[in-house]
Amino acid sequence: MRLWRGGRLATLADEHGWGLVDDGALLVDNGRLHWVGPAAALPAEAADAEVVDLQGALVTPGFVDCHTHLVYGGNRANEFEQRLLGASYADIAKAGGGIRATVAATRAAGEAELLASATQRARALMREGVTTLEVKSGYGLDADTEARMLRVARQLGALGVDVRTTYLAAHALPPEAASADDYIAAACAWLPALHAAGLVDAVDAFCEHIAFSPAQVARVFDAAQALGLPVKLHAEQLSDQGGAALAAGYRALSCDHLEYLSPAGVQAMAASGTVAVLLPGAFYALRESQLPPVAALREVGVPIALATDHNPGSSPTLSPLLMLNMACVLFRLTPEEAMRGLTVNGARALGLADRGRLVAGQRADFCIWDGGHPRELTACFGYNPLIARVYQGVQGEA
Amino acid sequence: MRLWRGGRLATLADEHGWGLVDDGALLVDNGRLHWVGPAAALPAEAADAEVVDLQGALVTPGFVDCHTHLVYGGNRANEFEQRLLGASYADIAKAGGGIRATVAATRAAGEAELLASATQRARALMREGVTTLEVKSGYGLDADTEARMLRVARQLGALGVDVRTTYLAAHALPPEAASADDYIAAACAWLPALHAAGLVDAVDAFCEHIAFSPAQVARVFDAAQALGLPVKLHAEQLSDQGGAALAAGYRALSCDHLEYLSPAGVQAMAASGTVAVLLPGAFYALRESQLPPVAALREVGVPIALATDHNPGSSPTLSPLLMLNMACVLFRLTPEEAMRGLTVNGARALGLADRGRLVAGQRADFCIWDGGHPRELTACFGYNPLIARVYQGVQGEA
Ligand SMILES: [Zn+2]
Ligand SMILES: [Zn+2]
Repeated sequence: MRLWRGGRLATLADEHGWGLVDDGALLVDNGRLHWVGPAAALPAEAADAEVVDLQGALVTPGFVDCHTHLVYGGNRANEFEQRLLGASYADIAKAGGGIRATVAATRAAGEAELLASATQRARALMREGVTTLEVKSGYGLDADTEARMLRVARQLGALGVDVRTTYLAAHALPPEAASADDYIAAACAWLPALHAAGLVDAVDAFCEHIAFSPAQVARVFDAAQALGLPVKLHAEQLSDQGGAALAAGYRALSCDHLEYLSPAGVQAMAASGTVAVLLPGAFYALRESQLPPVAALREVGVPIALATDHNPGSSPTLSPLLMLNMACVLFRLTPEEAMRGLTVNGARALGLADRGRLVAGQRADFCIWDGGHPRELTACFGYNPLIARVYQGVQGEA
Repeated sequence: MRLWRGGRLATLADEHGWGLVDDGALLVDNGRLHWVGPAAALPAEAADAEVVDLQGALVTPGFVDCHTHLVYGGNRANEFEQRLLGASYADIAKAGGGIRATVAATRAAGEAELLASATQRARALMREGVTTLEVKSGYGLDADTEARMLRVARQLGALGVDVRTTYLAAHALPPEAASADDYIAAACAWLPALHAAGLVDAVDAFCEHIAFSPAQVARVFDAAQALGLPVKLHAEQLSDQGGAALAAGYRALSCDHLEYLSPAGVQAMAASGTVAVLLPGAFYALRESQLPPVAALREVGVPIALATDHNPGSSPTLSPLLMLNMACVLFRLTPEEAMRGLTVNGARALGLADRGRLVAGQRADFCIWDGGHPRELTACFGYNPLIARVYQGVQGEA
């Protein structure tokens, strides 16, 4: 067994409150938390443990980044510059830009190239405390490239981060598709083989006027359900499509974005236990002004998660810490809500109950920070006080 | 001599354009750039130089963070949390919060304690490429503590960053002051000794209804002028006080913040060659909606600089890279304008013409980045691709 002691723990053990433990200790056995509490009350079996002195540092659960598009080719900084020089979105689309540029670059990239760039990004997330990482496909939009993206995502697990893969072929219409319905049929047909190869943990879609209709999303969800796979949805980001209510009908793990979520959508999510994943990076970068209905979600008890939504277009960020701050500044989450969003509720958005809190029985995934109180992690921005990350009971360097 | 070669240089050599040089080389002699250009055209004296292979990396001038409040005691994350839990600014002020909390913590801190925390912050800035750093006093508000802050700022230079100190006793009214006029008289009286001790490079004030009036600022500027010290001003952040025009009358190096700058203020700054220092971190954190008049500044050719404005209340950020992105996203600067703001125009805001561009004769302060084009540094946020920082011709690790 290994023992970390002499730090301040933010356990998030209960439904509410930071769950602070001063002069706290974490006893780890076989990659799991065996015991967590004040050092003064350590159980007898701690006597033989190898000891790590926390030297007064702050400990939180490891971060769960539950919504990323981490695997892709190229970047879109050229479009960022063109827009600031006056080009319209239409101009850029006409020149082959937008998501189609990323699809072309991803299709053109080999597996090794995709793995190299995604590794660099995953390492950046890990340097800010990420211990569980979701990665979506959706820049291939053909059977081969979707499979390649998911294989690369799986390989990121070797870096020392738990990777959850999500099949998002219903992300955009590929240029060669005869029609959206034809493409959805193909995307559904590719799924069973990918699932059989162990490449898919969940299925996602983009329900929006610029992407797919609720009826098309339902076909994707039916295909997932037939294989016993849980679903998620990019819902109500740009308009209210009723996507959240549709997803709730499939007992979706999460609906993500949600700026235009209606009161009926909030109720449906509450009834189905679906997590609301808020993505402040995309809100910020797109200069969105419509706020997600945080007060309504809070009132009916829909769990709120946060994620980077890392992608090369609308959220090219690799900072979960910045998302904590943006969730507070832009969405007015409390620091504790923000922290839960990146830990226990992020895990819930992936269907995982074994992580996100510092309590006995959970995975020994945690972060050691230079700081006196967890709210400090939310108040500053553009600063990373991580001292070390512990993944399955093994401490690495920050 | 030392030679860096085989990278892409963003020289910013001319008034407009990135000044890109592919397969570029930088020949450094005695801490200065001796020659900069395409490797194919290297002069004969490069033959004997020690060579560093840039391996295709991107090189920009070192960053100049021309407006920070880096030295202080304590932090204000508790107030950040209280506000999100519903407390008003008035509630927090009544409980001794706001700038007065930082003044109390700074007065209570010894020189070693202030140096330790400021060192950590300076190192964070340096990890993102800062090679010149301005630091203001203004949390002491008494003779001893103002002097202690400036001494600590000077000591930061030993870290390998060029520090410029600014005397900002006219930042806020200390609790013990009999009146604002009395305090201004005292602040002016402290200046000559601090200047004689070599602790002051410039003099600043906060002109605002919650701080000091234009008449009071003029007294501070007169005291600076009597000693031959250049001035700067926190101007028109919350309201139009006519501070920019006042400062322009003293040929101020810069006016900073400027959200409420009037057309007359823009004209006055243009006439005096005063730099506009925009501070997107404070704009973001305060959820300001009034934008600084970027188009008007651009039109009359007022140079625009950017800075972190690091401080524990309204801009607790240590990321110049995030300021690049926020300047583009929030203020609609072009990527090139943003980059100039953190390099050549940041230097100008400190009265420095010997840095901020990669041209012969300038200081050999530059950054080596993982990236293909400098716009990439502005398009992503919450990601630091620095490979190495070169300060006065000496390369450190990132
Ligand atoms: Zn997404
Ligand atoms: Zn300031």
